[in-house]
Amino acid sequence: MSLIVVGTMAFDAIETPFGKTDKIIGGSGTYVAYAASNFVKPVKQVSIVGYDFPKEEMDNLTSRGVDLEAVEIKQDKKSFFWSGKYHLDMNTRDSLVTDLNVLLDFNPQIPDSYQGAEYLMLGNLDPKLQKQVIEQLKVRPKLIVMDTMNFWMEIAMPQLEEVLKMVDVLMVNDSEARQLSGEFSIVKAAKKIMAMGPKYLIIKKGEHGALLFHENQVFFAPALPLEEVFDPTGAGDTFAGGFMGHIAKTNDISFENMKRAIIVGSAMASFCVEKFGPERLREITKADIDARIQQFVDLVNFDIVIN
Amino acid sequence: MSLIVVGTMAFDAIETPFGKTDKIIGGSGTYVAYAASNFVKPVKQVSIVGYDFPKEEMDNLTSRGVDLEAVEIKQDKKSFFWSGKYHLDMNTRDSLVTDLNVLLDFNPQIPDSYQGAEYLMLGNLDPKLQKQVIEQLKVRPKLIVMDTMNFWMEIAMPQLEEVLKMVDVLMVNDSEARQLSGEFSIVKAAKKIMAMGPKYLIIKKGEHGALLFHENQVFFAPALPLEEVFDPTGAGDTFAGGFMGHIAKTNDISFENMKRAIIVGSAMASFCVEKFGPERLREITKADIDARIQQFVDLVNFDIVIN
Repeated sequence: MSLIVVGTMAFDAIETPFGKTDKIIGGSGTYVAYAASNFVKPVKQVSIVGYDFPKEEMDNLTSRGVDLEAVEIKQDKKSFFWSGKYHLDMNTRDSLVTDLNVLLDFNPQIPDSYQGAEYLMLGNLDPKLQKQVIEQLKVRPKLIVMDTMNFWMEIAMPQLEEVLKMVDVLMVNDSEARQLSGEFSIVKAAKKIMAMGPKYLIIKKGEHGALLFHENQVFFAPALPLEEVFDPTGAGDTFAGGFMGHIAKTNDISFENMKRAIIVGSAMASFCVEKFGPERLREITKADIDARIQQFVDLVNFDIVIN
Repeated sequence: MSLIVVGTMAFDAIETPFGKTDKIIGGSGTYVAYAASNFVKPVKQVSIVGYDFPKEEMDNLTSRGVDLEAVEIKQDKKSFFWSGKYHLDMNTRDSLVTDLNVLLDFNPQIPDSYQGAEYLMLGNLDPKLQKQVIEQLKVRPKLIVMDTMNFWMEIAMPQLEEVLKMVDVLMVNDSEARQLSGEFSIVKAAKKIMAMGPKYLIIKKGEHGALLFHENQVFFAPALPLEEVFDPTGAGDTFAGGFMGHIAKTNDISFENMKRAIIVGSAMASFCVEKFGPERLREITKADIDARIQQFVDLVNFDIVIN
């Protein structure tokens, strides 16, 4: 099975209570690709970078089975750059710099070799571009998953509503779910959002885990309790990559299998936060991932007899 | 098996975004007793009330198997009264009135008929009184569980540290765990707190569930995603009552059974928040409880094969 991933490939400079980085590799598409490529190959990447994006990073991704045919390289512009500083609780952060650079020219084009992919992950982007990608696909994927953020709810709500009608799964965090629905209760928010289009809704709650909603069903996956969350940057995208990777690998879009995919995504995200940027994702092996998934099983497993 | 519960029996006046009450029945001991009496009888209550505490409430508790022999009735004083107002997020509240009244005279005495109880739940109280109760027991219970709060950390830390060395399980919420340990990371906090005495630590995170720590093991139980949290007052005490009730009923203090007890406690707490005060706890039947526990099973159950 193959997976198309649309997202940014970029530079970040990050400051957390544990340290700070110079410009390091970042971008939603980068994290999704690193995570998903543990489970499915090829990952057909759609993105845009500038002249400054390192060739070694491209080569590294290629060696992991990430197809970069649709990653446009703008020779006269810099890559997207974001800089941010996390507060002590690691759940909130201030953006210090947002240089869109090449992102202003992003006009995703799906090449012929990507057509027929069964799975599509739309990273957080202008909903106009997300729609443009869906419309270029000659055969509708079996599952279209999208991410978005409050920014688009504020400046492009009509466009966002259009894309929501075209996708199967929406992934947002709890505050975005509240903003999108106008409901404070997460359960009420979920009902309203599913009425807007997506049949499945994943609400990410960071250190408090994630919820999967579908019709009247709900599944909860915890986050792994960690001694230290070193850098949360990319954790949500890594979660998405693990989720999509598992779904594409197993080629099973049942609710039961989505539960497993959420556990896999949570396991991948738990690695991401252990070091700055995607560094930890580059190191981990299949054995590491398997052991981490087993930790999730142990964390929530109980056996109760109702009598 | 029998269970001794030490805690307040009181009046509350509560304001939430959904409404407000006049003086209604409250108190940590009351909630623990209502929850635990679904699983174990007798619940041997230790508390103090004033002349104004309703006889019907006492009779109701008695009819549920709550032994009130050690509930002192002060004929010349009023019952403890607390009034508070919840913020929109329901996780934070302002205390408006705290009238200690009879609590100033609370001097718990364990009658002969309570001796030999296998389980002891020490509700949130002055650690001096918690210690006094433990010292009165001629045979140490199989399991001693205690609750506390930030107030005692601020004004009675040495006394609190003494009691911590005498108990098996501490139940606190996440902010209390952080304050008690001086660690922001919940995992680090848990290690430090267990080094202070309790071999088991339960960290309650409200709508984000609860964690059970023991040595290097950790178990996570979610809270049930609810459309509306109507009134969180007493949810933590109701959780404690469900937890202790299950442990006492099954007479099994293994880690595996504590996991089940946390699910039972979470189920009981999910009822508590549905109406003001202990009202919902008075209504529910065994069938309601069983169905709610099954909802928890469905909420977290997944089946993953690592290959």
